[in-house]
Amino acid sequence: MAEAAANGEARGGGVPRPTNPMVTPLLTDLYQFTMAYAYWKAGKHLDRAVFDLYFRKNPFGGEFTIFGGLEECIRFIANFKFTEEEIKFLRSVMPTCEDGFFEYLSSIDCSDVEVYAIPEGYVVFPKVPLMRIEGPVAVVQLLETPFLSLVNYASLVTTNAARHRLVAGKSKNLLEFGLRRAQGPDGGISASRYSYMGGFDATSNVAAGRLFGIPIRGTHSHAFVSSFMGLDEITDKALTSSNGSNKCEDFVSLVQNWLTKIQDGSSLCGTFGETSQSELAAFTSYALAFPNSFLALVDTYDVMRSGVPNFCAVALALNDMGYKAVGIRLDSGDLAYLSVETRKFFHSVEKDFGIVGFGKMNITASNDLNEETIDALNKQGHEVDAFGIGTYLVTCYAQAALGCVFKLVEINKQPRIKLSEDVTKVSIPCKKKCYRLYGKEGYPLVDIMTGEDEPGPKIGERLLCRHPFNESKRAHVVPQHVEELLKCYWPGKSSKSREELPSLHEIRARCIQHLERMRPDHMRRLNPTPYKVSVSAKLYDFIHFLWLNEAPVGELQ
Amino acid sequence: MAEAAANGEARGGGVPRPTNPMVTPLLTDLYQFTMAYAYWKAGKHLDRAVFDLYFRKNPFGGEFTIFGGLEECIRFIANFKFTEEEIKFLRSVMPTCEDGFFEYLSSIDCSDVEVYAIPEGYVVFPKVPLMRIEGPVAVVQLLETPFLSLVNYASLVTTNAARHRLVAGKSKNLLEFGLRRAQGPDGGISASRYSYMGGFDATSNVAAGRLFGIPIRGTHSHAFVSSFMGLDEITDKALTSSNGSNKCEDFVSLVQNWLTKIQDGSSLCGTFGETSQSELAAFTSYALAFPNSFLALVDTYDVMRSGVPNFCAVALALNDMGYKAVGIRLDSGDLAYLSVETRKFFHSVEKDFGIVGFGKMNITASNDLNEETIDALNKQGHEVDAFGIGTYLVTCYAQAALGCVFKLVEINKQPRIKLSEDVTKVSIPCKKKCYRLYGKEGYPLVDIMTGEDEPGPKIGERLLCRHPFNESKRAHVVPQHVEELLKCYWPGKSSKSREELPSLHEIRARCIQHLERMRPDHMRRLNPTPYKVSVSAKLYDFIHFLWLNEAPVGELQ
Repeated sequence: MAEAAANGEARGGGVPRPTNPMVTPLLTDLYQFTMAYAYWKAGKHLDRAVFDLYFRKNPFGGEFTIFGGLEECIRFIANFKFTEEEIKFLRSVMPTCEDGFFEYLSSIDCSDVEVYAIPEGYVVFPKVPLMRIEGPVAVVQLLETPFLSLVNYASLVTTNAARHRLVAGKSKNLLEFGLRRAQGPDGGISASRYSYMGGFDATSNVAAGRLFGIPIRGTHSHAFVSSFMGLDEITDKALTSSNGSNKCEDFVSLVQNWLTKIQDGSSLCGTFGETSQSELAAFTSYALAFPNSFLALVDTYDVMRSGVPNFCAVALALNDMGYKAVGIRLDSGDLAYLSVETRKFFHSVEKDFGIVGFGKMNITASNDLNEETIDALNKQGHEVDAFGIGTYLVTCYAQAALGCVFKLVEINKQPRIKLSEDVTKVSIPCKKKCYRLYGKEGYPLVDIMTGEDEPGPKIGERLLCRHPFNESKRAHVVPQHVEELLKCYWPGKSSKSREELPSLHEIRARCIQHLERMRPDHMRRLNPTPYKVSVSAKLYDFIHFLWLNEAPVGELQ
Repeated sequence: MAEAAANGEARGGGVPRPTNPMVTPLLTDLYQFTMAYAYWKAGKHLDRAVFDLYFRKNPFGGEFTIFGGLEECIRFIANFKFTEEEIKFLRSVMPTCEDGFFEYLSSIDCSDVEVYAIPEGYVVFPKVPLMRIEGPVAVVQLLETPFLSLVNYASLVTTNAARHRLVAGKSKNLLEFGLRRAQGPDGGISASRYSYMGGFDATSNVAAGRLFGIPIRGTHSHAFVSSFMGLDEITDKALTSSNGSNKCEDFVSLVQNWLTKIQDGSSLCGTFGETSQSELAAFTSYALAFPNSFLALVDTYDVMRSGVPNFCAVALALNDMGYKAVGIRLDSGDLAYLSVETRKFFHSVEKDFGIVGFGKMNITASNDLNEETIDALNKQGHEVDAFGIGTYLVTCYAQAALGCVFKLVEINKQPRIKLSEDVTKVSIPCKKKCYRLYGKEGYPLVDIMTGEDEPGPKIGERLLCRHPFNESKRAHVVPQHVEELLKCYWPGKSSKSREELPSLHEIRARCIQHLERMRPDHMRRLNPTPYKVSVSAKLYDFIHFLWLNEAPVGELQ
C-alpha cells in the first residue's frame, strides 16, 4: 500500500494519489482526531455536516485571487484510507480512546463525502466558498487541515504569478527560478506548478518539469564562468556547422578573431578594453556544447566591458557556422540601464557587421525581481525580453500566506454561524449556491450566494444583491449571463455526475482567459476597485436573524 | 528502486533516504545539467572543485541564525544516483547532447564528494561557510540547488522558532500550529521539525509527530463547538471516576449543577448570565471523551460570559470525579485582557469552592501570534501559559526566505573569487578552515576563517582578526577556547572519519544550549550587536590581491 502511495498509483476510482507521497490522512492537526473521537463518543460522528472553504481577504493588496490546489484535494479524498500502521500510531497518540473508535477510523473513506468547488484556475473573491464539502462530520473534519494546506499556498502562488504576468505584460517571457529559495523541496515543486498555472512560461526546476510537463529552461551560472582560467583549457576546439556541410577545426581562434574585430574594427572600438579570458573560455566552451542554444550570463566580471563583448564574439563565430545565438542574461546591477546599453551594443554589431537580426538578441534579466521592480523597470524603460523570477515569486515574499478557512455552515440541516467581534470573521451560514453574474459588456459584475433551495438568478431578470453584513450596501443587477460557480467534483453517494479534472495546460489557459475578461479596474496594481460579493435578500435576512439569535446581549458596567 | 526511495530505505552506507521522497537528483535547476554537459564536453567535469554554502545576512533583523537541514543534505548525497527513467527524461530535455554524457550521468554518485559542515543546530553567522563541498565540479554543481533548497528554509524556520522562544521566555509552552497555512504540505512537515529544533515544545501536525518523534498536541476547534445544538444531544451521560471507584450516571446534570452554583452561589454571581447551551454541550461531550485531558476553546460565543463559566462548570464536575481539567484556549480578542480576566475567574473559583490549584489552570493563546505580538503581550502583562503559533512561524512571514548561496572558491587548487559591485556579494576565495574563538567569560567572541594550510588559532596566543573587506576593522584576540567549526560529515574517498548524525532531540538540546551561551547583546530583539566574523591576516591579503587582479579598471568618460 505504501509503495502504491509513493508511486502515485490510482486507487480512488481512477484518480491518482496526491503528487507528494507525504500527503496522507495523518497530514492533519491532532485536534481533528480528538474531535473525531469526541463526535464518535457522543454518537454524532455520522451527523451530516456542510463546511465551506473560503478566504476573507485578497492577497498582495489586490482585489482578486486565483483558485489553485483543487486537483490535489480530489486526489487526496479519492485515495483517503488509513493504513494499519497509521492506526497503530494514532492508538499510541490517543491511548485513552476506545478500540471501537480505531475500528471506525479503519473503516472510513470518502465515499460518503460530496465536494463542490469552483473550477481550478478561476478568478475568485473573498467570502465565496471555493469548495463546499458535505459528509459525516467526523470525516469532513479530518479533511480540514490537508485541504487548507493544499489550497492555501497553491492559490497564493498562482495569484502571485498572475500578478507578475499582469505587470510584465503578455509579450515577455516569464521564467520561474525559485527552487533554491522555496520553503522546502515541495514548496519548490508546487511553486513551479502553480506559477505555470498563473501564466509563467517555464521553470528551471527539472523535477517539476517532469512531473507536470512544464517547459524547462536553464543555461549556466557564475560558477561555470569562474571555473575556467583561460582559453588554453579548451582542448576539443572543433565545431561542425549547423547544416553539417563544413567543420571549423579551431572555433576558439574564430571567436578570438571576432573579438579583435569588435575591439578594433567596429564602431564599438574604445568602448571596452581587454575582456576576461576566463569568461571568454567559459562562453566558448558553452557554445561548443550548445551551439544551437547559446545563452550567456554576462555579469560575472563586468557586463559592458567584458560580458557583452565576449558574448558577441562567440555569437558572431557561431553565426559564421550557421548557428543563431539566443542571447544573454543579466543577474546584477542596474537592469534598466544595462539592458538598454546591451541592446545598443547588439544593434551596433548588427549594423557594423551586417548580421540581420543580431539587434533583436534575447535579453533575460534576473536578480531578486518582483512586481515592484518590474513595474519600476517598465517606468524607466528597458530592453528586457524575459524575466527570471525566484525568491519573491515562490515564497510570496510580499505576503507569505493566504488565510483560507474551513467553516461549519450546516449540520443535520441546521444552519450554523460562527460569530466574532470582528465582523469580517463572521461566517455566512447555510448550505449555499453561488453564482457569477455577467453584464452587457461581458465582464463579471458580482458574485451572489443564495440558500440552496432558492431559485437561481435568471438572465434578464432584475435581482437585488446585498452585502452580507452591511445593510446599506445593495444593488440591483440584470444579469446577461449567469454562471453557477460550485460544480460537483466528488459526488459521493449522490447521483450527480463528476466534473473532469482538466490538465495543467488547460487550467493555465482558462486562468489566462479569465484574467483577461475581468474589468481592468479590478486588476490594476494601484487602488484596484473591489469586485462585489453579495448574498440574496432572503439569505441576508436569515444571516441577521441567526446572528441576533446567537449573540449574547452585552452588559455595560 | 523507486519503492526503496519512497520507503526511506537505506542505500548510502546506512544513511536513510531524504525524508521527502520527492527529493531526487532531478530536484535541481536545469542549468546544473547544461553546465555538467559543458564541463563534460570540455573534459573538465572531473576538475576538483570546492564550493562554500553560506548566507550573507541574518534574517528577521537579527544578528544570528541557526543552521538547519544538514541531515537531509547528507541523506541526499548518500543516496544520490540517477534512475534509468530519470536519465531517459534528461535525454528528452537535452536532445542535442551526446550519448556519452548520459552514460557518465548514469555512472555518478557522491562517493568522490567530501562534505564538511558546521553541526546542525549551531548558532551561525554571515559569510562563514555552513558547508564546504569538494568533488568533481560537474557532480558538486548538481548538488547546489537541492542543498540550497534543503538548507535555506530549514535554517530560516529554525531561527524563527528560536526567536519566538527567546521572546516568550523559557517557562512558556510553545506549540507549532502552522500546517494549514504552510507553503505546501512539505513546508508544513519541515516547519514542524525545525520549529521543534529551534526550541518549540510540540506540534499539532500528526504526520510530523510520527516522522520525527515530536510531541503532538490538539483539542478541538470552533466547528466542534458550533456542531452541537444543546445538551439533549448527549445520550451517553455516564462517567466513571478517575480511580474507577464510582460512576456518575448523569454527568450532564452534574455540570449543570455546577454552572448554577457558579452563577448564583459564588462571588462571580452577576458577572455573567445565561451561557451558550451548544457550547456547554460541546464542552461536556469533549470532557466525556477526554476526562483526563479536558482543554476547551472558549471564544466561540463570548469568552467571559459563556466560554469560561461553561469551562469551569465542566472542570468542577470533572474534579468531583477525580479528574483534573487542563485549561482553556483563547483564539481571538484581546489576549492580554482576556487571559488576566480568565485567571481572576479561576482564582475566584478556587477560593469560592476551595478547589486547590484551580487558579493555576493552563491558559493557551493562539490567533496570528508572532514575535511582536508576544512581546506586546509581555509588556502589557498577561496570564498566558502556552502560545500556539502558526502562520507567522511556519511561513516566516516577517522574512520568507534566507538567501543562502553556493559559491565556487577553488578549482584544481586555484582559488576563485566572485566579484560584484555590491561588496557584500563578493565571495571569500580559497578552501578554508573556520574557527570559533571563545573568551574568558565563556562567550564566543569571533569566528575566523583561514586558508586551509595556515596553522589554526591557539589557546592563549594573541591573534589578529580582520574584517574580510573593511581594512580598518580588525582586532586582536587571545582565545581561551578554540573550536574548529567545519567537521567531516561525508568523507568521500578521503580517510577522514565521518561525524555521526545526531537525533532531532539531541540537535534541539544543542541548539538551546548554544543559544544560551551567546552574549545576550547579540541576541536581543532591538538593535542587537553584530557578532564578529573575520579572516586571518594572511587570508585578508590574499583576498585583496586576487580582487585587484580580477577586477577590470574602470574608465570614467
